[in-house]
Amino acid sequence: MNPTQQTEKDKAEKLAHLRHTLAHLLAAAVLEFWPDTKNTVGPAIDNGFYYDFDFTTPVSEKDFPRIEKRMRELLKTWSEFTHKEVSEKEAHEFFKDNPYKLELISDIISRGEKITLYTCGKFTDLCRGGHIEHPSKEIDPHSFSLSRVAGAYWKGDEKNKSLSRIYGLAFSTKEELEAYVKMQEEAKKRDHRKIGKEQGLFVFSDLVGAGLPLWTPKGTIIRELLNDYVWKLRKEKGYQKVAIPHITKKELYETSGHWSKFADELLKIKTRENHLYAMKPMNCPHHTQIYAAAPKSYREMPQRYCETTMVYRDEQSGELSGLSRVLSITQDDAHVFCRKNQIEEEMFAVWDIIDTFYKTFGFNLKIRLSRHDPEHFEKYLGTPEIWKSAEDQLLSIINKRGITEYIDGKGEAALYGPKIDFITTDSLGRTLQVATIQLDFNLPKNFDLTCTNEKGEREQIVMIHCAIMGSIERFLSVLIEHFNGSFPLWLAPVQVSLIPIMEKHQEFAKRIYDILKMADIRVHLDDADENLGKKIRRAKNDKVPYMIVIGDKEIEANKVTLESRDHGQLGQIAPDELLRKLVAEITEKK
Amino acid sequence: MNPTQQTEKDKAEKLAHLRHTLAHLLAAAVLEFWPDTKNTVGPAIDNGFYYDFDFTTPVSEKDFPRIEKRMRELLKTWSEFTHKEVSEKEAHEFFKDNPYKLELISDIISRGEKITLYTCGKFTDLCRGGHIEHPSKEIDPHSFSLSRVAGAYWKGDEKNKSLSRIYGLAFSTKEELEAYVKMQEEAKKRDHRKIGKEQGLFVFSDLVGAGLPLWTPKGTIIRELLNDYVWKLRKEKGYQKVAIPHITKKELYETSGHWSKFADELLKIKTRENHLYAMKPMNCPHHTQIYAAAPKSYREMPQRYCETTMVYRDEQSGELSGLSRVLSITQDDAHVFCRKNQIEEEMFAVWDIIDTFYKTFGFNLKIRLSRHDPEHFEKYLGTPEIWKSAEDQLLSIINKRGITEYIDGKGEAALYGPKIDFITTDSLGRTLQVATIQLDFNLPKNFDLTCTNEKGEREQIVMIHCAIMGSIERFLSVLIEHFNGSFPLWLAPVQVSLIPIMEKHQEFAKRIYDILKMADIRVHLDDADENLGKKIRRAKNDKVPYMIVIGDKEIEANKVTLESRDHGQLGQIAPDELLRKLVAEITEKK
Repeated sequence: MNPTQQTEKDKAEKLAHLRHTLAHLLAAAVLEFWPDTKNTVGPAIDNGFYYDFDFTTPVSEKDFPRIEKRMRELLKTWSEFTHKEVSEKEAHEFFKDNPYKLELISDIISRGEKITLYTCGKFTDLCRGGHIEHPSKEIDPHSFSLSRVAGAYWKGDEKNKSLSRIYGLAFSTKEELEAYVKMQEEAKKRDHRKIGKEQGLFVFSDLVGAGLPLWTPKGTIIRELLNDYVWKLRKEKGYQKVAIPHITKKELYETSGHWSKFADELLKIKTRENHLYAMKPMNCPHHTQIYAAAPKSYREMPQRYCETTMVYRDEQSGELSGLSRVLSITQDDAHVFCRKNQIEEEMFAVWDIIDTFYKTFGFNLKIRLSRHDPEHFEKYLGTPEIWKSAEDQLLSIINKRGITEYIDGKGEAALYGPKIDFITTDSLGRTLQVATIQLDFNLPKNFDLTCTNEKGEREQIVMIHCAIMGSIERFLSVLIEHFNGSFPLWLAPVQVSLIPIMEKHQEFAKRIYDILKMADIRVHLDDADENLGKKIRRAKNDKVPYMIVIGDKEIEANKVTLESRDHGQLGQIAPDELLRKLVAEITEKK
Repeated sequence: MNPTQQTEKDKAEKLAHLRHTLAHLLAAAVLEFWPDTKNTVGPAIDNGFYYDFDFTTPVSEKDFPRIEKRMRELLKTWSEFTHKEVSEKEAHEFFKDNPYKLELISDIISRGEKITLYTCGKFTDLCRGGHIEHPSKEIDPHSFSLSRVAGAYWKGDEKNKSLSRIYGLAFSTKEELEAYVKMQEEAKKRDHRKIGKEQGLFVFSDLVGAGLPLWTPKGTIIRELLNDYVWKLRKEKGYQKVAIPHITKKELYETSGHWSKFADELLKIKTRENHLYAMKPMNCPHHTQIYAAAPKSYREMPQRYCETTMVYRDEQSGELSGLSRVLSITQDDAHVFCRKNQIEEEMFAVWDIIDTFYKTFGFNLKIRLSRHDPEHFEKYLGTPEIWKSAEDQLLSIINKRGITEYIDGKGEAALYGPKIDFITTDSLGRTLQVATIQLDFNLPKNFDLTCTNEKGEREQIVMIHCAIMGSIERFLSVLIEHFNGSFPLWLAPVQVSLIPIMEKHQEFAKRIYDILKMADIRVHLDDADENLGKKIRRAKNDKVPYMIVIGDKEIEANKVTLESRDHGQLGQIAPDELLRKLVAEITEKK
């Protein structure tokens, strides 16, 4: 770990302490206004904090101003946190009116842990610590705000009582809070669900079900273009397409190890003959069966299989959201079956593809080495020795690639091996995990995948898992919001909108249409019997990259007047020049 | 129905009678040799007949010669069939030692039908008739042969006793029988399962399961090329791609009507939250939801959606076979949503695509009008009026297309509407149903699919279902056998095999390789350290369309010696000429 990482980590920890402190402050204020409320738990989260309460009278966002005001007043008096360890009896006495805290105390006892109480100002809470030591000095009273109230079950279990969760946003400074709020507002405007509907890219149907997007012709064009681009990059590196079904007998996952580790998330099917099948939640086990079907010589290695196909996971319906979380996930998946001495070259080839692909959209990439969590080894396949070897290899590859700064992702590995994850920031400044390369010694072992080496011996091989987009659905949700629906020319479902002003201009418009169509440019001729303003508004609303209005002037000059969505009026241009310009921009993916 | 059809039907009926008569004859001969055998039922089938027996001693194919011999002797004595109606009591008395016949008699009684006994020679059987009246005169004693013995359950129910089924082949003449046997032998050599394995096009895995082919890189190339070709033809007609998931809530099929008519064949999934989903057995209901998601104006009609995607049906495992019958069926499906006055133009467009596509492979097409069966109306969706209108429309389209001869397919319609089916004959003379166009007024009604017409009114639309290949798996099984594995150049997974004789020839070979590769030609450079004969044999076994052996002569002349799989040695040719020749042949799909 290098110094940058250390500082980053310190900063993150301090922010978490600040947020957790504010959760205490929220509880203190709430209990002043509603003394018979039972407070339960209040952790720090990604963008702030929350606290869950059992209110006797309902609370709403209308109450936020006075709670916030009281929090700021109390903050001035919160000069220092103190804490003490107490006996079970003392703890029981202190929280005797709060059944939630009593339950938490029992949980602590049963885990054999110590009971600690933390106090600041006049407020004491059952807590394990993790606060800002001197809140009044160290917390900017305008660096936080309450954001919303929502229902939440006690201990997250829907069989338990429903509580009220008050969420707060909190950052190190007032400026950071304001920037976050502004970014959230912008993100709301750019919500891919909203833009997807406006532009008619995908739809959901109540009859088909939540989490199962149906792709319209326009949306399918974008999906196919993205996928074709990945395929073009892969083909140059020697990849070949394969094709597999979406189901399998459970025996495949018993051999791979998924059945024992992953069974809950599998969609299962029992046939009328009582055979048990599962829908595939990933493609690797199927792909091993293509590799394993015929013996391989070292001369045939590596084998690089790729396939864009849907996988299915039994997601909880409450977690489904737009394209970000779906039941039917389209993966642009690939698996390289190679010898150990080919790992480096193959991983660099994938890395090249990822670099080229993401650069096209203006994404800069950071690296995370996602390792296993040695304290929870039961979550993984294989032995500690195999994991060490694979993780060392990835680290060496990161170093050879000349990467000096990377994020250490302890516990972020896949079931079967460590990963190099690629992290980016979108145009709103949000951090996103995108592509991933995974190194896997375990599936080749479980499926006994080998090749015959130069000496005629059977040699165990390794697998590299490497999706470029990962899930096309999730990647598209990112792209839509990143571009705010203004897709670059090469991706836009409609690239040019041709608008004849009057009926007499239609013939010339049709000529231009035919010229562009011949070159496979996606052009829309808007010859509806409507006024010009309406047609122009339609093209602008649809964020069509180029608009061409055709009237007398254009016909006289045998030229067209070109307007760019991104650069405004570009003046008159001859039809053949137009064609050249568009084809060049599309080819260059500008 | 025109005269040709009448004659065809008469001929088919007569052949069925002949085959059924031979089933009687088989039973007569068997009962002479093994008098304590219980004979059960013996119908005519596609290529002959069978009879199911309960033997007390096992029978095998070794017994066939003497059974056949006895059948021919008995045939001479079978001058005329007679029959009589008998009472239940008489029938019981006659078959008192045969529990199977007694059960059949009870079935007949419970259906309220008459009991008839048919006699020829000295053999009498419980039968409904359908024989050659004068067997000794009308049946050529060498027009049949026994083919195999297999197990079969009484009444086809696996809970019942297992019987021995003896199969026979039977045709109108000895020549037809011989031609059939020869064709069968050739078909065995060409079996797509055998060729698919030899050429490494697809594999099956015991872990994944029967009926679930996994497509290797080579097989996937062919699948993609076929699919791209269909897409090219469709794109020219204004089709657009869409994309849907493979599952749906059951509500979709309740609305479409599939749930009540088709539920047995659905693969069903219950999620951990207890939602009931089904895997899609067809794509039409999903596609309606894309159409229905936004209101459509007459100006946007027709909408032509296409998608190549896998559908799943709960097939019985005993019926799965190679690619001919699979669980995961890849359909090159399309649905046209159009107004009634657009049906004709749209159907002709599909018909054009089908004609072009099948002509490419040398298939001639015959037409079948597949109507509903008015006596079993419960099998279909909709009303008799809707069906009449749809069938009349298809008939009118067939007439307008100038088709004078077509097959009348009573009872061959789809669940939701009548079809025009396309029938062809492969290189072995086997009849195959290939493409289909279906006209559907019912799904648009069930899903209330409309467009706004010129008057601003909502107008119900119609759907045309039109797969070109149908199932890619089944179509590929046909193609592999039709071409005997020798795919035309444009489809061959490896198009050119480059074989340098010695190591010193490799550099020149690599130059040729690069030239061809640049033009996206699928070339294999066989630079293995093996002798020339072995490499040539490999290229020939793999049925590679072109082979180029490179030695001193070629390097000296800066030319290559081209050998065609289909036309033998083609002599020396310059590299640029080679490239032009190959690209031209690939483009023309020769």
